[in-house]
Amino acid sequence: MQILKDRIVSEGKVMPGGILNVAAFLNQQVDINLYNEIGREFRRLFGDVPVTRILTIEASGIGVACVTAQYFNVPVVFARKFRAKNLEDNLFCAQVTSFTHGVDYQITVPKPYLKESDSVLLIDDFLANGCALEGLADLVQAAGAKLVGAGIVIEKGFQHGGKRFRERHIRLESLAIIDSMDPVTGFVFR
Amino acid sequence: MQILKDRIVSEGKVMPGGILNVAAFLNQQVDINLYNEIGREFRRLFGDVPVTRILTIEASGIGVACVTAQYFNVPVVFARKFRAKNLEDNLFCAQVTSFTHGVDYQITVPKPYLKESDSVLLIDDFLANGCALEGLADLVQAAGAKLVGAGIVIEKGFQHGGKRFRERHIRLESLAIIDSMDPVTGFVFR
Repeated sequence: MQILKDRIVSEGKVMPGGILNVAAFLNQQVDINLYNEIGREFRRLFGDVPVTRILTIEASGIGVACVTAQYFNVPVVFARKFRAKNLEDNLFCAQVTSFTHGVDYQITVPKPYLKESDSVLLIDDFLANGCALEGLADLVQAAGAKLVGAGIVIEKGFQHGGKRFRERHIRLESLAIIDSMDPVTGFVFR
Repeated sequence: MQILKDRIVSEGKVMPGGILNVAAFLNQQVDINLYNEIGREFRRLFGDVPVTRILTIEASGIGVACVTAQYFNVPVVFARKFRAKNLEDNLFCAQVTSFTHGVDYQITVPKPYLKESDSVLLIDDFLANGCALEGLADLVQAAGAKLVGAGIVIEKGFQHGGKRFRERHIRLESLAIIDSMDPVTGFVFR
């Protein structure tokens, strides 16, 4: 998706430790017109399959998932990273390791929000080592629902999440895949 | 907003400790058509004032803020609750106490994302004791920007956040105000 790559080049910041900061337009300050372009593109890419539900994970996946859901006209469900005390016990759970924060955590979705009859599209802003996305896939599997695939805004191709997903024959559509990035020489896209 | 009140009555669950669970349609499973109605209503209510930016707080405010932003055609910024290690030091900070989780935390926004020239509308899904919203107002003040007001989906009128905000003459538009709620007798709206 060229307009996304252009924004990564012009506004993305490569930080120490292989971290890409795109907070300026994607995941802290949101360009809502770009989000709409992203939503339309996911709809185009997954237009050939039935989707009954979009699943994402808090926090930064929520906005892009909600805007995308308008193009599919389906509900969004977001997995929570903490077990809040105002939720019930009736939860699907999966374990996730965060690359960015270096910690393990549980993600949960209340069981009534993922049904066996659902065809679920995962949506997230980033794919790096893929643990968050695998956690979401685990939740879909736990529900006995059909996993349609995953739509990712930015995939870090130099980490292993995308490779692992494709080897498992899970359909993955990433709008920009970064094969290498460097503070001085910039970005190489696949 | 009648369709919102109807959903609260039919799907909201009153939990022990004055907690209202509306996860079924508002803040974990999202009815995207309801979100669009909410966004349109905020636009109608704040249609008389210039808005250049919408500010919310992760996590559950993000979706409704993004969908609402489409009706204002402005960027969304979300305050983060944790200081992630991939952010820079150049941050506005405010202190917040969570009623739901019983803890204090910092909220932050990178300084470039709130400008002195901005007219900022706060959007959040809930207003209870108002600490999260006051934290957001503090961030706007720290930036020297203009605070246009706050749009809230559900206000718990039996807690003090709304009263405190109105006494400070900050414009507050809540789409549903619950004056009392009870697991047996149900909801009383203002």
